[in-house]
Amino acid sequence: MYTTLKRWIIGKPLKSEQLKEEKLPIWKALPILSSDALSSVAYGTEQILTVLVVAGSMALWYSLPISGAIVGLLFLLILSYRQVIDQYPGGGGAYIVSMDNIGWFAGTIAGASLLVDYTLTVAVSVTAGAAAITSAVPILHDHAVLLSVSFVLLIMILNLRGLRESGTIFAFPTYMFIIGILSLILVGIFNVLKGGIPANVPPVTSHLPEGLTWFLLLRAFSSGCSALTGIEAISNATPTFRPPETKHAARTLALLGVLLATLFAGVSLLAYLYHLTPDPKQTIISQIAEQTFGRTIPYYYVQATTALILILAANTAYSGFPLLASIMAKDKLMPRMFMTRGDRLNFSNGIIALSIAAIVLILAFGGDIDRLIPLYAIGVFTSFTLAQLGMVRRWLKHKPTGWRTKLAINATGAVVCFIVLMIFAITKFHEGAWLIVLVIPMFILLFSQIYRHYQGIADELRLDRSTEKPVTQDQLLIIPVGGVNRVVRNTISYAKSLEVEAVALYIAFEKEDQEKMKNKWAEWDPGIPLEVTYSPYRSVIQPLLDFVDQMKARNKNCQITVLIPQFIPRRWWHNLLHNQTALMIRFILLWKRDVVIGTVPFHLKK
Amino acid sequence: MYTTLKRWIIGKPLKSEQLKEEKLPIWKALPILSSDALSSVAYGTEQILTVLVVAGSMALWYSLPISGAIVGLLFLLILSYRQVIDQYPGGGGAYIVSMDNIGWFAGTIAGASLLVDYTLTVAVSVTAGAAAITSAVPILHDHAVLLSVSFVLLIMILNLRGLRESGTIFAFPTYMFIIGILSLILVGIFNVLKGGIPANVPPVTSHLPEGLTWFLLLRAFSSGCSALTGIEAISNATPTFRPPETKHAARTLALLGVLLATLFAGVSLLAYLYHLTPDPKQTIISQIAEQTFGRTIPYYYVQATTALILILAANTAYSGFPLLASIMAKDKLMPRMFMTRGDRLNFSNGIIALSIAAIVLILAFGGDIDRLIPLYAIGVFTSFTLAQLGMVRRWLKHKPTGWRTKLAINATGAVVCFIVLMIFAITKFHEGAWLIVLVIPMFILLFSQIYRHYQGIADELRLDRSTEKPVTQDQLLIIPVGGVNRVVRNTISYAKSLEVEAVALYIAFEKEDQEKMKNKWAEWDPGIPLEVTYSPYRSVIQPLLDFVDQMKARNKNCQITVLIPQFIPRRWWHNLLHNQTALMIRFILLWKRDVVIGTVPFHLKK
Repeated sequence: MYTTLKRWIIGKPLKSEQLKEEKLPIWKALPILSSDALSSVAYGTEQILTVLVVAGSMALWYSLPISGAIVGLLFLLILSYRQVIDQYPGGGGAYIVSMDNIGWFAGTIAGASLLVDYTLTVAVSVTAGAAAITSAVPILHDHAVLLSVSFVLLIMILNLRGLRESGTIFAFPTYMFIIGILSLILVGIFNVLKGGIPANVPPVTSHLPEGLTWFLLLRAFSSGCSALTGIEAISNATPTFRPPETKHAARTLALLGVLLATLFAGVSLLAYLYHLTPDPKQTIISQIAEQTFGRTIPYYYVQATTALILILAANTAYSGFPLLASIMAKDKLMPRMFMTRGDRLNFSNGIIALSIAAIVLILAFGGDIDRLIPLYAIGVFTSFTLAQLGMVRRWLKHKPTGWRTKLAINATGAVVCFIVLMIFAITKFHEGAWLIVLVIPMFILLFSQIYRHYQGIADELRLDRSTEKPVTQDQLLIIPVGGVNRVVRNTISYAKSLEVEAVALYIAFEKEDQEKMKNKWAEWDPGIPLEVTYSPYRSVIQPLLDFVDQMKARNKNCQITVLIPQFIPRRWWHNLLHNQTALMIRFILLWKRDVVIGTVPFHLKK
Repeated sequence: MYTTLKRWIIGKPLKSEQLKEEKLPIWKALPILSSDALSSVAYGTEQILTVLVVAGSMALWYSLPISGAIVGLLFLLILSYRQVIDQYPGGGGAYIVSMDNIGWFAGTIAGASLLVDYTLTVAVSVTAGAAAITSAVPILHDHAVLLSVSFVLLIMILNLRGLRESGTIFAFPTYMFIIGILSLILVGIFNVLKGGIPANVPPVTSHLPEGLTWFLLLRAFSSGCSALTGIEAISNATPTFRPPETKHAARTLALLGVLLATLFAGVSLLAYLYHLTPDPKQTIISQIAEQTFGRTIPYYYVQATTALILILAANTAYSGFPLLASIMAKDKLMPRMFMTRGDRLNFSNGIIALSIAAIVLILAFGGDIDRLIPLYAIGVFTSFTLAQLGMVRRWLKHKPTGWRTKLAINATGAVVCFIVLMIFAITKFHEGAWLIVLVIPMFILLFSQIYRHYQGIADELRLDRSTEKPVTQDQLLIIPVGGVNRVVRNTISYAKSLEVEAVALYIAFEKEDQEKMKNKWAEWDPGIPLEVTYSPYRSVIQPLLDFVDQMKARNKNCQITVLIPQFIPRRWWHNLLHNQTALMIRFILLWKRDVVIGTVPFHLKK
């Protein structure tokens, strides 16, 4: 039943050879890998305005230069990351780049930042998607958290089904969103030019308005930088492109840069021209669309595609997180299970872990996007900075032709990203950035512990094939028996077939049972000696452990096997009716003593 | 750590021989076994008044004759149950009596009713105890459910520590409660006689007041019968008395009858004389105590001891439920685990099961006692009726000296209890009695399924000691290996020591791994042949199952053992870092194929 259900949800298993077919052309890679970056258009402008509005409506003008600065930063990042793609066709982005060029410590910082960010991407995107829906359909306002969690589960299932199929599903909404927002910007600007809407724009003054401090401006800038999250996804996922991978990835990244700049700048401009202020019940995009189209079909089209792309933006993280986790697992920094490919050739454990973490975050923050975003961008810019820094060191070391220009680009990128990071850390510290400052070192500590563990085991298990051959040893079987019945007969038969020294052990709970059992055994006469012991505390474990120790002491060079007679009921739920002593004995013996455990099953027919 | 915590909460384990010491003298048995019956004084009168008040204050006079009828019924039950004690010194009450004299079906009905009732006793008592506390301390009114659940957990722990110690703890509150209520009744009646309180008693009329129907009167009577619950506890627990058990138990039962009649009648009388009506925020006992003493120390004494005895009344069920469950488990009607005595010689699984069931009930009914009581008495009177009926059949069969009088008592008891039962079923059906009518048949079905299962297994496992000797068989070992390392070497060494035919199996996930492994194996040359197979779906289970089938087909008469190499980390949480493939293989193989599973541990040192 479990298998049937799994097949139905996840699809048929794929063979390992089918892995190569799961590669993406540009038209599909763009929507899959950039929905995160593009969707941040839906909240980037709003985040700037939310900060500025504190200083009064006069301050809103500053959203324009701030948006301009962010677009500039965007182009710098695009240029920088094209160089990463070119140098690292195997993918991995910030983690690989810093691990490779700076060192283990920088690599783990980048890895931790990226894993945290992927999780936050999922949480922030579905939360913002739910906000887009509740803006259009106010009745759902109270169920935003439930909506968000359902979306995470839905995306998880789509991803467990495999990248290819998910790609086709995710391609359309992204294009529909691009068309929707572009139309909105064009119609909006046309309306303003026509004078159709009174442009009650606040005047521009030469000095900062009262209440607007530099601190507030920087904070608005850093909030707006949330629009830049997600652009590293393409460089992380280079190997999922159709060959030639690097060329296709670079082209996709450039395309993303142009699209993102256009949409973000357009929305910021319209928000300014319409003189909009943030409203907790309605997003900025919803306000722009309502003013432009009224509550007509185009309005609902914009809201629907915005919601869709936001929800699917989470999918970007589902390409990135499992791949990064598998690379880190290969590097012995994450548990090995993240390396295992599932039935559909994806890293299913990573997909599931990401979903659980995102749901926990959504529930912990009550689905409140304004509280999640401060956590978000600090990790992104940590990884940006490290990736650029890594590239700088790479150019300095290898010095290929034209390295000076390339170095200049990455060095500028590194410096700018580091400045932005500092602005974040300072202006957002109280709003939650401290949490990330706490979490990332914890991850690094965990990674190093995991690494040491795996390294230690590998050392311990390594074998010299030329000298370390198998060695034989004397053997002794111990068979705990609960009476004389067919289950016991089955096990005794097995022991006799092995032709090894054996002894049966009976543990009596009542003193008088000892003699009774001895007599029964003698009458049966199975050809294996019986030892009887009395357990005043009605436990079988301790007397069995004691007996093992006793036998071990008596036969120093003997290897001991405990053979456990176990009957297997016909239906699994019948186990509820039987004390699971065999299971417990096996578990405790395996941990506490160096004995081999054999389970001799007796399959019941009734 | 688990062991230390367990010791601290439960106490040191006791030896089986210490069982006999855990016997009770009368002065201790009375409070332990009768706190349920006595505590029902706290809600019995209130239940009558709650029904009567619907018909107006004129109807309240009828609480007196109703209470009288209930006291009469009480004495009849006491007489009947003394005869049960006399005939069944082994305890078991209604279950044993009806199983023994009427038959399997009646026995299971009685058993189901009793188990349900014990659970309801716990739920009703702690809920009423919480009500007594919130009457005195209104701030706690909103936390009644939390209070109730905490009390259940507390009583569970005390019982897991063992009957003896619990007894000493529970003896004092019962006596303090008896003293408190007796003083209350005496002072109250004295006050009324002195005319200290205006006795604005409604006049007695010769016809039923308007609105008071016979149906309502019968319903009030049946509600009041909740005061009789718990009196069967003593006959169920006869063997826990100090010898001579039956004599001591009978004397305790008589004592209980006198005490219960006095307290119940006294409270009903005072409630009438004070002309009290039920109030959801204050219990009747609280009202009586407040009118008698004012909110002085004696008032709080009465409330505190009422709360205490109510909460501890639940303890009665903790003597009865686990004992009955163990008897029924011995009769193969309940899962075997209820027969196992815990470290402290009590039936710990019964204690835990009862606690869980009671907590579920409390949570399901939101801690509302008025909704729980209708469920309560119907099961009690089912078991009363069956027990009496069983005794009637017993007298008719054995006819000992003086059997006619004894028969008359039990026959009257049976008829009266049956009539009360019918009154219940009719007047309380809509209020929840239907639930019990549904649950009891479900239990009976479950019991019969369990019985058939155990009986079937016993038949299947039975062995003829003179003919069915162990038989030997050819053996083949299959060793799944994941590479050439020390864990594998350890297992191969073991296989070679057994001197049985063996074959190693390597399951490759990548085609090129097959050749590599073959070469490594050849280089190592451990003296056991290697078979290599390729798993395109990256699963080890199915190829292993297939290989087992293949080997089985090739060696028809061979018994197959799968030897699983497993490394055991030094700390249990290290297991999180390793795929639990070995565990899964063992689990699935054991279920799906008739093979012996051997686990050869390699204990890591790091």
